[in-house]
Amino acid sequence: MKARVLLKKDQRDFHPWIFQTEIAKIEGEFENGDVVNVHLSSGKFYGVGYINTKSKIAIRLLSLQPLSTEQIVDQRIAEALKRREKLAVGREAHRLVNGEADGLPGLVVDKYGDYLVMQINTLGMEKLKSLIVEKLKKYTSPLGIYEKSDAPARSKEGLEESCGWILGNGPEVLYFEQDGLLLAADLKGQKTGAFLDQLHNSRLCSMFAKDQVCLDVFSYTGNFALHLLKAGAQSVVLIDYSQRSLSIAEQLLTLNGFSNYQIVQANAFDWLKENSRFERFDLVVLDPPSFAKTSTSKDSALRGHKEINLRAMRILKKPGILATASCTQVISEQEFESILNDAAKDSKVLLSVLYKGGQGFDHPFLLAVPETRYLKFIVAEVRRRY
Amino acid sequence: MKARVLLKKDQRDFHPWIFQTEIAKIEGEFENGDVVNVHLSSGKFYGVGYINTKSKIAIRLLSLQPLSTEQIVDQRIAEALKRREKLAVGREAHRLVNGEADGLPGLVVDKYGDYLVMQINTLGMEKLKSLIVEKLKKYTSPLGIYEKSDAPARSKEGLEESCGWILGNGPEVLYFEQDGLLLAADLKGQKTGAFLDQLHNSRLCSMFAKDQVCLDVFSYTGNFALHLLKAGAQSVVLIDYSQRSLSIAEQLLTLNGFSNYQIVQANAFDWLKENSRFERFDLVVLDPPSFAKTSTSKDSALRGHKEINLRAMRILKKPGILATASCTQVISEQEFESILNDAAKDSKVLLSVLYKGGQGFDHPFLLAVPETRYLKFIVAEVRRRY
Repeated sequence: MKARVLLKKDQRDFHPWIFQTEIAKIEGEFENGDVVNVHLSSGKFYGVGYINTKSKIAIRLLSLQPLSTEQIVDQRIAEALKRREKLAVGREAHRLVNGEADGLPGLVVDKYGDYLVMQINTLGMEKLKSLIVEKLKKYTSPLGIYEKSDAPARSKEGLEESCGWILGNGPEVLYFEQDGLLLAADLKGQKTGAFLDQLHNSRLCSMFAKDQVCLDVFSYTGNFALHLLKAGAQSVVLIDYSQRSLSIAEQLLTLNGFSNYQIVQANAFDWLKENSRFERFDLVVLDPPSFAKTSTSKDSALRGHKEINLRAMRILKKPGILATASCTQVISEQEFESILNDAAKDSKVLLSVLYKGGQGFDHPFLLAVPETRYLKFIVAEVRRRY
Repeated sequence: MKARVLLKKDQRDFHPWIFQTEIAKIEGEFENGDVVNVHLSSGKFYGVGYINTKSKIAIRLLSLQPLSTEQIVDQRIAEALKRREKLAVGREAHRLVNGEADGLPGLVVDKYGDYLVMQINTLGMEKLKSLIVEKLKKYTSPLGIYEKSDAPARSKEGLEESCGWILGNGPEVLYFEQDGLLLAADLKGQKTGAFLDQLHNSRLCSMFAKDQVCLDVFSYTGNFALHLLKAGAQSVVLIDYSQRSLSIAEQLLTLNGFSNYQIVQANAFDWLKENSRFERFDLVVLDPPSFAKTSTSKDSALRGHKEINLRAMRILKKPGILATASCTQVISEQEFESILNDAAKDSKVLLSVLYKGGQGFDHPFLLAVPETRYLKFIVAEVRRRY
C-alpha cells in the first residue's frame, strides 16, 4: 500500500517537483525514496511520485495517471526511445534518458554504440534501479550497462558513489563514431564519459575552423579539437589538466589521422595567464567544467568564467572567433552574457555574436523548469572596436 | 570642415550610439545627416559619426579612427565582405552588411545571386548612399543594386520611402539556390525580399520533418514549407494573407517538384481560431511578422504572440513539434519564453525545448548592443503533462 500525500491546495500549476511547503500531511507508512500517491486537498488523485522528506524537493512526480510504478517506468523508457528516433536520427551515441524532460527525474542514460551508461542522482530513482535496468534491457538489448553514479548531488540524497558494470561487461573506454570521427567515452572520466550535449555546438564552431590556428581549452578527450581538425583547421593546441583525458585525446587524434596538434598538460588558468600576452590564435574554444555545483560557489564561478574569457579575448588575433561555453546551471544565460560583456569591455574589444546555442536536441529541457537547463554556448567574432 | 561635437565626459564605455544627453556642445556648422568629429571633454579625438539632432540617438559612430568618410566606407564594405567568406561559406544568397554589427549603422545589404538589395534606415546613411553604391560596385560587381528603403523607421528620420533599381536593372523576383532548393526574394514583398535570417532555423526544424503532417503559418513565399518538404514531410499546409506571396510560394513549390502541399489564403489568427479544435498536425511553424515596431505596441504584440502559440499548441498532435519565432526587437528572449510558458499552461501541455536559436550567422549582433538583436526561435516538443 503506497503512502498518501495530501497537498495544501486543491489545484496546482503543473511542475514535476513538489516542495515540502506544498504538503499538508502524509498518511500511511513510507521510507524515503518510496513511491507515493499524491492527492489534492479535496482528496482528488493528483499523481504518483517518489518522496524524500530530507530534500526541499519532497516529491518528484513520475506520472499524473494512477499507474503502477512498473507501468510508468516501462512507458517512460519506451517514450524516451521513441523520442530519440526523432531527436538523434542515426546517431550511434546519444542521450537516451534526460531526467525530468523524459519524465524520469534523477535518471540519465547515455548510449555509446552497443553500451549504455546510466547515472542516478536521487534516492527515489536509486530504488527503481533494477526496474530501470530491466526495461533498458527489454527495449535496447545492450551489450552492457555501466552505472556511473558519481555526481556530487548524490551525497545530498544520502547516497554513496556507485560505479561499475551492472549488466554485461565492457571496456573502460567506449569508442563511437560521430560526424565521420572516432570519438570516445571514458568511464573513468567526467559525466557519463563524454559530453554528448556539445555535439551540435562542436559542429557549429567547426564551420569557422578552415585554415585557422585553433586553441581548445579544457579539451577533455578532444571532441572540439577533433571537429575543428576535421573541418580543416590549420592546427589545434589542446589544454587540459588531466593526463588521462589527454592520453585518450592523443590516441583519438592519431586514430583519426591527424598530426597537426599539440597537447599541453596544464592548469588552464595558469596557462592562459602565461600565454595571453600575444595574439596567437584565430579560434579559441573554452569549454570549462562546471566551476559551481551550488549557488554558494556562484561568485567564484562567475569570476572563473570572466577570467578565462578575458584571457581568451586577449590571446585571439583580431578579428578572431571565440566559442565559449558554460555548463553550470547556477549561471543563467543573462549572467553568462553579462560576464562576456564585462570581459569584452576590459579587453577593449567588440563581441559580435554569430551563434547562441545550448544543450543538444537529445538533451531537451522543460521550458517551465529552469533547473533542467544548464548549457550556454556562444560563438562570437572578437574584434577591435570600430 | 566637419563640425566638432564635444562630449560631456572625458572617457566613455564604447557603444556605437551617442545619445543627445551625452553631448556638451557642437562647434561649427552642420546639417542633420552630416558626418562629424566627436571629441571627449578634454578635447581629445574620440571618433567619427553621423549626426541627427532630431533623434534621441544623436550620433551613430562610424569609426574611432580619424579617417575620411570615404576611407571608412571603403574599409567597412571590404571587412563585411571578408567576414562573409567565413560566415556564409558558398551561399549564393546571404546578408552582406548588417548595420551596426558591420560598423555601418542604418545600412542593410543582402546578396541574392548576382543582385544586391540595400535598405537605408537613417538620414546619415542616406547621405552616404552614392558612396556605398560605389564601394559595393567596386568590391562585388553586381548585375544590379535595388534599393528597398521602405522600413517604417525611416519616417522618424524624416525620410520618405525609396524603392527602385539604383544600379543596373533586374527582375521583380530574384531567384536563388539554397540547400538544394530554388528560393526567391520578392522585391515587392517584405524586408529585402526574403528572410535570410531564418535559414539556419529552417534547416533546424526540418530535422524533425520526415513523414510529418506540417503547417506553416505566415508562410510568406514558403521558405520553411520548402525546407520541410525537402526533408521528407508528408504534407505541408501554407497559410498567409498575401495572395502575391502565396503565388510566388506556389510557383516555387511547383518548380521544386513538390505536390504534397495545400495553400490557404487567410488571416492566420482567424484560420487558427477556426481550425484549432482538432489535433491535426505533427509539426507547426509560426513565423509571424513583427506585430510591434515600437514599444508602445508591445502589449498587443505580446497578446498576438500568445494567441497564435496557444492555438498552435492545440492544433498539434501530442507529442508534436512547435517551431515558433518572434522577430520583433521589443520582445526580449525572456519575454518570448514567458509567453510560451503562459500558452503552455493555458493549453495544459509541457514544452520540452529541443533547440533555441536566433538570427543566422550572417546577421551577427553586438552583444553589448541589445537593439541589434531581434530574432528569437524555439523548437519544442509539445506533449501532454507526465
